[in-house]
Amino acid sequence: MKKKAEYKSALSINKGINQPPSINPDVLTKSVRKRRKKYSADEFVAGILSGNRTILSQAITMVESSLPAHCETAQLIVEKCLPYSAQSVRIGITGVPGAGKSTFIETFGLYITGEGRKLAVLTVDPSSENTKGSILGDKTRMELLSIHPQAFIRPSPSAGKLGGVARKTRETIILCEAAGFDTILIETVGVGQSETSVHTMVDFFLLLMLAGAGDELQGIKRGIMEMADLIAITKADGLNKLVAENASIAYQNALYLFPKKSSGWSPQVHTCSAITNTGIKELWGIIMEYIDFTKKSGYFETFRKEQSIIRMHNTIIEYLNNSFYDNRDVKSMVPDIERQLHEGSITSYKAAFKLLDKYFKRQL
Amino acid sequence: MKKKAEYKSALSINKGINQPPSINPDVLTKSVRKRRKKYSADEFVAGILSGNRTILSQAITMVESSLPAHCETAQLIVEKCLPYSAQSVRIGITGVPGAGKSTFIETFGLYITGEGRKLAVLTVDPSSENTKGSILGDKTRMELLSIHPQAFIRPSPSAGKLGGVARKTRETIILCEAAGFDTILIETVGVGQSETSVHTMVDFFLLLMLAGAGDELQGIKRGIMEMADLIAITKADGLNKLVAENASIAYQNALYLFPKKSSGWSPQVHTCSAITNTGIKELWGIIMEYIDFTKKSGYFETFRKEQSIIRMHNTIIEYLNNSFYDNRDVKSMVPDIERQLHEGSITSYKAAFKLLDKYFKRQL
Repeated sequence: MKKKAEYKSALSINKGINQPPSINPDVLTKSVRKRRKKYSADEFVAGILSGNRTILSQAITMVESSLPAHCETAQLIVEKCLPYSAQSVRIGITGVPGAGKSTFIETFGLYITGEGRKLAVLTVDPSSENTKGSILGDKTRMELLSIHPQAFIRPSPSAGKLGGVARKTRETIILCEAAGFDTILIETVGVGQSETSVHTMVDFFLLLMLAGAGDELQGIKRGIMEMADLIAITKADGLNKLVAENASIAYQNALYLFPKKSSGWSPQVHTCSAITNTGIKELWGIIMEYIDFTKKSGYFETFRKEQSIIRMHNTIIEYLNNSFYDNRDVKSMVPDIERQLHEGSITSYKAAFKLLDKYFKRQL
Repeated sequence: MKKKAEYKSALSINKGINQPPSINPDVLTKSVRKRRKKYSADEFVAGILSGNRTILSQAITMVESSLPAHCETAQLIVEKCLPYSAQSVRIGITGVPGAGKSTFIETFGLYITGEGRKLAVLTVDPSSENTKGSILGDKTRMELLSIHPQAFIRPSPSAGKLGGVARKTRETIILCEAAGFDTILIETVGVGQSETSVHTMVDFFLLLMLAGAGDELQGIKRGIMEMADLIAITKADGLNKLVAENASIAYQNALYLFPKKSSGWSPQVHTCSAITNTGIKELWGIIMEYIDFTKKSGYFETFRKEQSIIRMHNTIIEYLNNSFYDNRDVKSMVPDIERQLHEGSITSYKAAFKLLDKYFKRQL
């Protein structure tokens, strides 16, 4: 993590801006929607680098905005912040329904901040596209963490398709890191696709599971378990403790049967309780051990570089995909093609090329 | 499965061709490369529907060919065969290195033919692109099956990219089914991507594993185990029997922890030995049970329809992908962009859009 002094010298590179622009914080928080001051990209960057979280929040709002003017400024901000990012530990967290994710993050987050770290918690929830996010929900479900001076909680961006959310999340990470947050938790709801996308942004993937082999366990999507570097069996307290410990052994045995991870790390399983504050310290210890292990082997850096290439390719594929399926001619043809496929009167390849011909005739 | 009589009546639909064209098989097999008779698409189709395996082989060669003239005829043949296909059970088989796939398929295949079924064994091996296939290898490693009158073994197509292989495999399935094969085994080498692709073509996925938690197990790619409907622990004979049975229990326990399959089927684990011919009958019984189960629930048909839609979309995405990355301007720009990504001087999204701008400027 960069020291504040370094940020100051960093600021001086940015066209002589040594101080964050003077803002009356009251004005910003009380009537931010009505009279938001229009900052330049450089003013935003200076504010972010100085750790001003009001400006950080506003910058993230710019990143999340779909207005073209905002997009342009946002891109400038992100670009200028990029050299000051990448100094953090990025952790993805997901879990089965009922595993108590919020309670866990509250306790876990308070432990991490207690260790002197600065923590940003971001939430990726593609389902919130409909509900327009759950800002209040996010703040209230982590009562103590949300008011902690070393913590910054940002609910899910609520616009656009999943890819948009991914992009916004990634850019929000850059801004948070530039603002001095050295630990980033990215919480996802267990819908499958968002985890895969978050996996291209985090160093470590933590999966919260519940003891019990019943239907609770079926809430997790296929493929998620294989991404986990650590499985935490939550709610290991009271009468549930023994069950959780048995589940832990069962998962550990199951994981032995699975292919080795390219990091060379053997995924671990651990029990914990957010209520009794048990096992939390140990979980953090395992994460630190992983970071140490992968930094020594060089995998940490290699993986981050790979991730940036993967994100680029994912963005390209998604764009090509949207360009194709949003094409008016293609759209109008799809129902008929799918009907023919259903009838079995056409091969998938012929169907594909009928649509492709349509698309490229328009494009060329 | 359609009866021969039905094929005959089917043949009569095809412009009055009631008999396969008269061919001297000796001529075809002895000097096939020198003087291959040029059939029309209709002659090919008639030959295939009559179960003539020499013509079937030749038609598959047409499907695998990359010559434009062949492609056109091949597409016609496939299209005309399509209505006579889909009457089989399609099984994907893969396994860890050392699991004895060939020996297993030999024994398993002989059992299946012994049940009165007609079996086609297709191999998908993208690595054979370099070695130009292993025709001899495939024939010799299944000594008895390769000369069995009810079996048809076709080694991997050896040209083009994986997508090409997928397409050719899918079209080969159509031809084999039209020729009356009611059981299709598609063997893949465990390289990951081909299994995923084969998964869009088969009704059932069988994974061969070895007992022992050592490095042998690490040969299987991540994600493959989750595709399995049945895991067979091979080489359960002699001193290895007990170890295999223990492994079977361990895998069964592990599978309990995993998410339910959309088919509603609980993946099973079973031991077998191809050498002592143990457990082979039981494995086939499980497959039949699965087919019965999914046909009753309607999943069998639903899944096949879904697969055809997925294959169409996969083909489209792959084509768009190739069109993009094979673009000369994009190609020349990629190394520089990747260097900037490595340096961390550019975000993945900016990188993506630099390439996309380049591409679409050419296209528009």
